[in-house]
Amino acid sequence: MLKVFICGGSGYTGGELLRILSNHTGVKVIGATSEKSAGKSPAELFPNLKKYSNLIYEPLKPGKILNKAELFFMSLPHGKSQEAVDFFFKHGKKVIDLSADYRLRDVKIYEEWYKVPHNYQSTLKKAVYGLPELYRKKIARASLTANPGCYPTGAILGLYPAIKNKFIDYSSIIIDSKSGVSGAGRNPDIRFAYCEINEGFKAYAITTHRHTPEIEQELSLSAGIDIKVNFTPHLAPFDRGILTTIYAPLTRQMGTTEIIDLYKDIYTKEPFVIVHDEGKLPDVKSVRGTNLCEIATVVNKRTNTLVVVTAIDNLVKGASGQAVHNMNIMMGFDEKTALDTLAIFP
Amino acid sequence: MLKVFICGGSGYTGGELLRILSNHTGVKVIGATSEKSAGKSPAELFPNLKKYSNLIYEPLKPGKILNKAELFFMSLPHGKSQEAVDFFFKHGKKVIDLSADYRLRDVKIYEEWYKVPHNYQSTLKKAVYGLPELYRKKIARASLTANPGCYPTGAILGLYPAIKNKFIDYSSIIIDSKSGVSGAGRNPDIRFAYCEINEGFKAYAITTHRHTPEIEQELSLSAGIDIKVNFTPHLAPFDRGILTTIYAPLTRQMGTTEIIDLYKDIYTKEPFVIVHDEGKLPDVKSVRGTNLCEIATVVNKRTNTLVVVTAIDNLVKGASGQAVHNMNIMMGFDEKTALDTLAIFP
Amino acid sequence: MLKVFICGGSGYTGGELLRILSNHTGVKVIGATSEKSAGKSPAELFPNLKKYSNLIYEPLKPGKILNKAELFFMSLPHGKSQEAVDFFFKHGKKVIDLSADYRLRDVKIYEEWYKVPHNYQSTLKKAVYGLPELYRKKIARASLTANPGCYPTGAILGLYPAIKNKFIDYSSIIIDSKSGVSGAGRNPDIRFAYCEINEGFKAYAITTHRHTPEIEQELSLSAGIDIKVNFTPHLAPFDRGILTTIYAPLTRQMGTTEIIDLYKDIYTKEPFVIVHDEGKLPDVKSVRGTNLCEIATVVNKRTNTLVVVTAIDNLVKGASGQAVHNMNIMMGFDEKTALDTLAIFP
Amino acid sequence: MLKVFICGGSGYTGGELLRILSNHTGVKVIGATSEKSAGKSPAELFPNLKKYSNLIYEPLKPGKILNKAELFFMSLPHGKSQEAVDFFFKHGKKVIDLSADYRLRDVKIYEEWYKVPHNYQSTLKKAVYGLPELYRKKIARASLTANPGCYPTGAILGLYPAIKNKFIDYSSIIIDSKSGVSGAGRNPDIRFAYCEINEGFKAYAITTHRHTPEIEQELSLSAGIDIKVNFTPHLAPFDRGILTTIYAPLTRQMGTTEIIDLYKDIYTKEPFVIVHDEGKLPDVKSVRGTNLCEIATVVNKRTNTLVVVTAIDNLVKGASGQAVHNMNIMMGFDEKTALDTLAIFP
Repeated sequence: MLKVFICGGSGYTGGELLRILSNHTGVKVIGATSEKSAGKSPAELFPNLKKYSNLIYEPLKPGKILNKAELFFMSLPHGKSQEAVDFFFKHGKKVIDLSADYRLRDVKIYEEWYKVPHNYQSTLKKAVYGLPELYRKKIARASLTANPGCYPTGAILGLYPAIKNKFIDYSSIIIDSKSGVSGAGRNPDIRFAYCEINEGFKAYAITTHRHTPEIEQELSLSAGIDIKVNFTPHLAPFDRGILTTIYAPLTRQMGTTEIIDLYKDIYTKEPFVIVHDEGKLPDVKSVRGTNLCEIATVVNKRTNTLVVVTAIDNLVKGASGQAVHNMNIMMGFDEKTALDTLAIFP
Repeated sequence: MLKVFICGGSGYTGGELLRILSNHTGVKVIGATSEKSAGKSPAELFPNLKKYSNLIYEPLKPGKILNKAELFFMSLPHGKSQEAVDFFFKHGKKVIDLSADYRLRDVKIYEEWYKVPHNYQSTLKKAVYGLPELYRKKIARASLTANPGCYPTGAILGLYPAIKNKFIDYSSIIIDSKSGVSGAGRNPDIRFAYCEINEGFKAYAITTHRHTPEIEQELSLSAGIDIKVNFTPHLAPFDRGILTTIYAPLTRQMGTTEIIDLYKDIYTKEPFVIVHDEGKLPDVKSVRGTNLCEIATVVNKRTNTLVVVTAIDNLVKGASGQAVHNMNIMMGFDEKTALDTLAIFP
Repeated sequence: MLKVFICGGSGYTGGELLRILSNHTGVKVIGATSEKSAGKSPAELFPNLKKYSNLIYEPLKPGKILNKAELFFMSLPHGKSQEAVDFFFKHGKKVIDLSADYRLRDVKIYEEWYKVPHNYQSTLKKAVYGLPELYRKKIARASLTANPGCYPTGAILGLYPAIKNKFIDYSSIIIDSKSGVSGAGRNPDIRFAYCEINEGFKAYAITTHRHTPEIEQELSLSAGIDIKVNFTPHLAPFDRGILTTIYAPLTRQMGTTEIIDLYKDIYTKEPFVIVHDEGKLPDVKSVRGTNLCEIATVVNKRTNTLVVVTAIDNLVKGASGQAVHNMNIMMGFDEKTALDTLAIFP
Repeated sequence: MLKVFICGGSGYTGGELLRILSNHTGVKVIGATSEKSAGKSPAELFPNLKKYSNLIYEPLKPGKILNKAELFFMSLPHGKSQEAVDFFFKHGKKVIDLSADYRLRDVKIYEEWYKVPHNYQSTLKKAVYGLPELYRKKIARASLTANPGCYPTGAILGLYPAIKNKFIDYSSIIIDSKSGVSGAGRNPDIRFAYCEINEGFKAYAITTHRHTPEIEQELSLSAGIDIKVNFTPHLAPFDRGILTTIYAPLTRQMGTTEIIDLYKDIYTKEPFVIVHDEGKLPDVKSVRGTNLCEIATVVNKRTNTLVVVTAIDNLVKGASGQAVHNMNIMMGFDEKTALDTLAIFP
């Protein structure tokens, strides 16, 4: 049994890691950290984690837990993850970082968008961006995987086949995303109180969301040229899920089925990507609780524009499920282990 | 007291007309039609319309009701509104048509998108598109007003000042709208059942929604050239409201405050348009139950793109409230009569 | 114009007072207090109160504002309201206290349930319990009205006619209430975060809720004997509304219509109580945003038990609407002023 | 592999059976019937059942499918299940009937409440009521199990230990239940449309709900005397779950912890019942998607009344999960097979 430790285990992504790993036949969660819930168990914090009554959160002391586990999931806020990641990595441990700290290759861009310095640049160079559909081979050899952000997961998977097949104009890509409220984390904040969110819908952080450079980095690397995107996140009244609607001009006349075929080719062997046939469109409700990314593509013939829609569960494919997927790849488990579940409907 | 009749009074927009008109000091609702609810009263169909227990729905027989009222609100499905509108109009009545039948000036486009013939083209030529912010003077003189669709209202109001001031590129306008479920009407349909919609979010009718040519018609008329848009509607789990996020490349370098000022100039005297100051963004929850359209504009300096967000209540500003606004203009009432209410929050 | 002041104007009930009073033709809101939002305006705190941009919250200094207004609405937490209420009352002002401080006649019971001392017992003796359906005449003469709690409003109105007509057994009354989330107030608290509440439903404070003695006081006064009740509040995933289901054994055989008639008799002249005919049941959605209380009664013939269901909007009839109703009675306005609105549906 | 067939596989409970059985290591779903969806696959009807693209619904022809499977799940409406159940049973098959047809032992009561005749009384006598916590041994030997109704499951489990330990007065039991909308099934019906349910809450079928005699039958059998209850179902705006609040007078003075201990004794070996410690209360959100029943008990010392709260997922423990549990018992599988999952939170 692989021994794993979860650093930052009391938020929604930490709880989701515990939920998913409880189904994993090859893994044992040895411990979990939480500063404010130290001394308590996940069974006290999460109504669904009664199984974890024997696990007690402890404050994060990297030196103390280093030898207890072989792999560390890091579910800490950005800025606070850097140092511990570096410590575990340098001591030869496998690390999967769910924070943003090791996602951006260019330290300047990280510091510009996140407003904190990055003090571990040599380690940063060793990090692999943990989007299995793009970097499976590198992830398999990696010791440090930077788990993608929730919005970038849906945006990149939606655009990657179009970029690989070079049929869109990169100069005016629009990424319009709608997220459930769990994306804001489990913190008391009046802005995410029930009565403020329910029956509402709004955009936020227009032009300033920190996932923008992450999306741009990966699209640019795929395209081989520098891409800037218009990314607008929205807050929607449901618990889980991100629906992303993407627009990009086509560089030549193409039909919807032609593009669907190209998308299917790219993702044909992917266990967690579903490319819909013409006429079927993704819904966040269909992927809730799963590691799936559903994708539909439609051509607007009147404007020669590609429209792509993707749906993921922000806490699974957009966070903890993808982290477990990365672990499965890094440690040689079957990729679907603990992730082969059906959504609950309704 | 102005006598009005509501043809098609048993759906959500019909009920909303009755609700709003109950606050109108200068109007008396003489009657309402409904084929399937004939013999019942709005008090039986709508939990909030107990006041209307003396009003009894009757089947629509235009000749029979012609002389009972001076103004007719038509809340019938498209295709079914044409004939009765023509009849009332030709007999000298004021008509406000909430269906799509008299919105599109080009009959071919109407017939192409709505798949029904238009048999009253001479009357169509007399219809005024009932968006008060664009056509107030014409509406004041009109006998037949074609009340705008819900999506077009939010989309056109969001783009009109940019077009009037000629600072956007018309070739790649993106209109990404998110609507509450009441937009689908009050019909039994498993697709709009609670359990199918709740905790879900999806796009629908990508590239094919019938409001597309209506948006294009009005933008093209404002711009003086032919404009095609990418319009994608989404279905969101709340009762009321449409949030529309619009993207268009800027034709020159501009700042957010500069654009806000231009928008404020255009809408400065409008009683139902609120242009937000920088940093504040619309929310459908803020306009629920009101005739307001909230607008925010943001410039993405990195891509030189204008982002506009508008929020309306689809049943009020997007339908029945705008219809009453049009009536107020047509009949010389104070424009805010029956519409000057505050949203309920939360 | 009657000058009123709102002490504690930044919570949901304070905002609701501002919303309702904006429709009142005889009242002017002179000022409002808020400790944590002093210096801001309601327009900044509430998306629906844009009209109040000129009103600036100030810290509560009773001596400073005493002469500015003739009537004071007190929307402060229990314990914090006592002193200021006493001050305004003793200086001859009209006071409507929305807190619990002046509701319970027996100081011992107040101190036992609220865990704070009551230091103004002579003033307490002058307070009238502000449930117009029971105490209209006293309210009309009162200078200090203690506005009822939200749960007691629905519970008492549901039981009062049965007690007046002496046909229920008082020994095993069950009051099972289900409240929307706005009842918890506008405070950051993880327990009321969207993701914790949405798709959930639970009971809370079983046997210990502070509204219990308030309900018991009023039922006992109506009955003339000491009544104890079983009261269980539940938290439900909607913004507004309380549905209360009440059970009490009948002391004799009675039919549903007989009881409906007795209820209708009691409430026949009440502007805000609707007693449903047989077969129709209340829904919180039907009363949202209104000052109405809908009531249905059903006899379970198999067990000879009376079942009563009541629905109110907790922020209107359960708080701010009832406060304005009380003001209308105290000041001689038409009772329906500012309260004669239709619910928004859907 | 045990071959099973699902008769009535296109509703929510049918879909839920398919979802749960996809996790069952000892079972193969051979086929499923649906009259209106014959020719389609579950993958077309349910967004979460993509795995079942090779299963095609067929019309129910008992003779044709008799030899294809060893066990038949019957998910048909009441009245329509009787005959096919009888047919499979008489031909020696194992049958688990999720309809109400074989739950009530007294045919007269069945016919009185369900308004249809029961034509298979000899088979009815062989049916075992499939509540494992009460009838595990009988279920293990049964060929025909009548799977309990959703409301009865939560009600009976909440009262059974109190009846077994004889500490409540049976004469005035109150059962106040709140159900999510999926309980109404997957049918187009305007009453369950999103906009009619959302932001609403109401009671329905007061004194007349068909689950009443089922609850009474089982409580009476446990008590050894005839019990009548007051049962009120409510419709709540969430997808899944039933919270039931139960009130019964205590026949002697008891403390909360004493009662909790008695409840824990009764359910100590039950894999799917959780009796909460004092201070913790059930929430439907905590059991969503699981076969769990959470129970809390509280004594109201002021009225000497027992309050019990239970929470289940109506589609799992209240229907399809319990059916699979029954199958596991009948066929000798480990009871938790396919049912040992954690709820998704949030």
